[in-house]
Amino acid sequence: LAQHFSTRRRPSGVKLSIGDDAAILSPNRQNWVWTVDACVEGVHFDWNWLGAEDVGWRSYQAAVSDIAAMGAKPVAALSSLALPADADTALWRGLARGQARAARALGCPIIGGNLSRAKQVSIHTTVLGSSEHPLRRSGAKPGDEIWLVGNIGLATAGLAVLQQVPEARRSAAMLACVRAWRRPKALVEEGLKLCHRAHAAIDVSDGVAGDMRHLSESSQVSVVLFEDELRQAILPKLTKVAAAMGHPLLDWVLFGGEDYALLAAGPTDSRPAFARRIGCVERGKNVWLELAGGERQIIGAAFDHFRPK
Amino acid sequence: LAQHFSTRRRPSGVKLSIGDDAAILSPNRQNWVWTVDACVEGVHFDWNWLGAEDVGWRSYQAAVSDIAAMGAKPVAALSSLALPADADTALWRGLARGQARAARALGCPIIGGNLSRAKQVSIHTTVLGSSEHPLRRSGAKPGDEIWLVGNIGLATAGLAVLQQVPEARRSAAMLACVRAWRRPKALVEEGLKLCHRAHAAIDVSDGVAGDMRHLSESSQVSVVLFEDELRQAILPKLTKVAAAMGHPLLDWVLFGGEDYALLAAGPTDSRPAFARRIGCVERGKNVWLELAGGERQIIGAAFDHFRPK
Repeated sequence: LAQHFSTRRRPSGVKLSIGDDAAILSPNRQNWVWTVDACVEGVHFDWNWLGAEDVGWRSYQAAVSDIAAMGAKPVAALSSLALPADADTALWRGLARGQARAARALGCPIIGGNLSRAKQVSIHTTVLGSSEHPLRRSGAKPGDEIWLVGNIGLATAGLAVLQQVPEARRSAAMLACVRAWRRPKALVEEGLKLCHRAHAAIDVSDGVAGDMRHLSESSQVSVVLFEDELRQAILPKLTKVAAAMGHPLLDWVLFGGEDYALLAAGPTDSRPAFARRIGCVERGKNVWLELAGGERQIIGAAFDHFRPK
Repeated sequence: LAQHFSTRRRPSGVKLSIGDDAAILSPNRQNWVWTVDACVEGVHFDWNWLGAEDVGWRSYQAAVSDIAAMGAKPVAALSSLALPADADTALWRGLARGQARAARALGCPIIGGNLSRAKQVSIHTTVLGSSEHPLRRSGAKPGDEIWLVGNIGLATAGLAVLQQVPEARRSAAMLACVRAWRRPKALVEEGLKLCHRAHAAIDVSDGVAGDMRHLSESSQVSVVLFEDELRQAILPKLTKVAAAMGHPLLDWVLFGGEDYALLAAGPTDSRPAFARRIGCVERGKNVWLELAGGERQIIGAAFDHFRPK
């Protein structure tokens, strides 16, 4: 493990990294935020559409995204890898390289882990982060705005491109979507900046509708998303791809995950420049989509006409 | 996850448990020790010999044992479970119950985790512990004694009993070995007491020979195990089982793992009452077995006559 995940300097706050029974952390007086995320072959990814390094990269960014959504700074991670006995050395190296590159890009070193055999490739990544004031899902208040940080829909569109569009016919916009799906980035800096501005936050891993439902339930509030503001938040390249593929645009935006954008709830006068308003928080329950005409629908079963056939 | 791993009171030092993107820890000024351990169906366990609750229990104790071997107090854990789509509810509940019971027995709550699908059942458990002065593998010094804390050989003998002895013919001693294999216990209290007495420690998961090799390499010393002291450390019930099964006794002791005993290196006058001397540390390298007659052998290839045929 050590040879693949080594870092030149020992990260500050880490007293002992790979090579013993456990890693040692020497924290200060801050809160430590800690998550674990799994990425399983055939369940979370398919080798038809991803290389080993992509899988390593994505799994790491997905795990760190949970830390970003807490408004915390990722400090270190452990990686538990399971690989088939007959797996290629190239596969294992690719996974480790993808994770190590993501770790460097995020300034969050892998300080330990575990290797085992299994029928399928799987990566369980656990990440610790520190935060003075962690952002939970449960703090949204009636009167708050819903903020979108980062882009949504691109990753799911990218997967659709890989599955449905022959390589020779992929436009530049389509390739950008593929890239967004293969190489997502956890929004750590943005999460940290949300910390003293937002009341609640979550990362988009299950799609805006699903993750807003989590926030609505945790905060015991109603979330209303505005169709026109959502549409304004969509990048022109996504609009192009949806048109070229004949796919309903809002479907990718509302139900597609894996972009690892952040959604937050906070008061109007605290909204940072990098956040876009896409909705508001009210008393009540459920997640609603307010259509351009003013009509409201509960997102979920009532929204099935947006779902792909 | 929350419903299976809930604890009545929020553990001290834990600000937020299951239900958000990550768990929040509020530590004091201590070192945090952090490990991850995997337990995979068909690789680390076999349903022929273990129930779901046993698997949950063992996986948790194995992970915490790494913390015990650091001389640290386990504080909390996250559990990442992967299960086949067609897995029985009873299976999933059994695993969670086994983990939750081990967590209670060890005073180390599960504060988060992840659930995913996979072809095989697997459990990746990550544990954080705190320690003022963590015990590494690398501190052994020439002149130290090698200490054994807990029992060795029982667990491997227990597995051999399950595989080779029909149920009706299992003696009380054999059943004790089976129980040792199914329900190991991480030696947390003992590990904590070793903290200011030992120079180095490791838990026995790969067998004494293998784990002493890790310690010898990390500390850059030679480890000499004394056959007569090892034999004195063997419980009478293990001797009985070995005799009944016609198995070379020292084989289970030297090469069998999964008892989660602790091995430590420290000076004679620091040895606690619960630790037994089984060897010594010298300048040099390799792990040696000093036979009762005084002759020394490198353990490993040179020791093959003790291995089962």
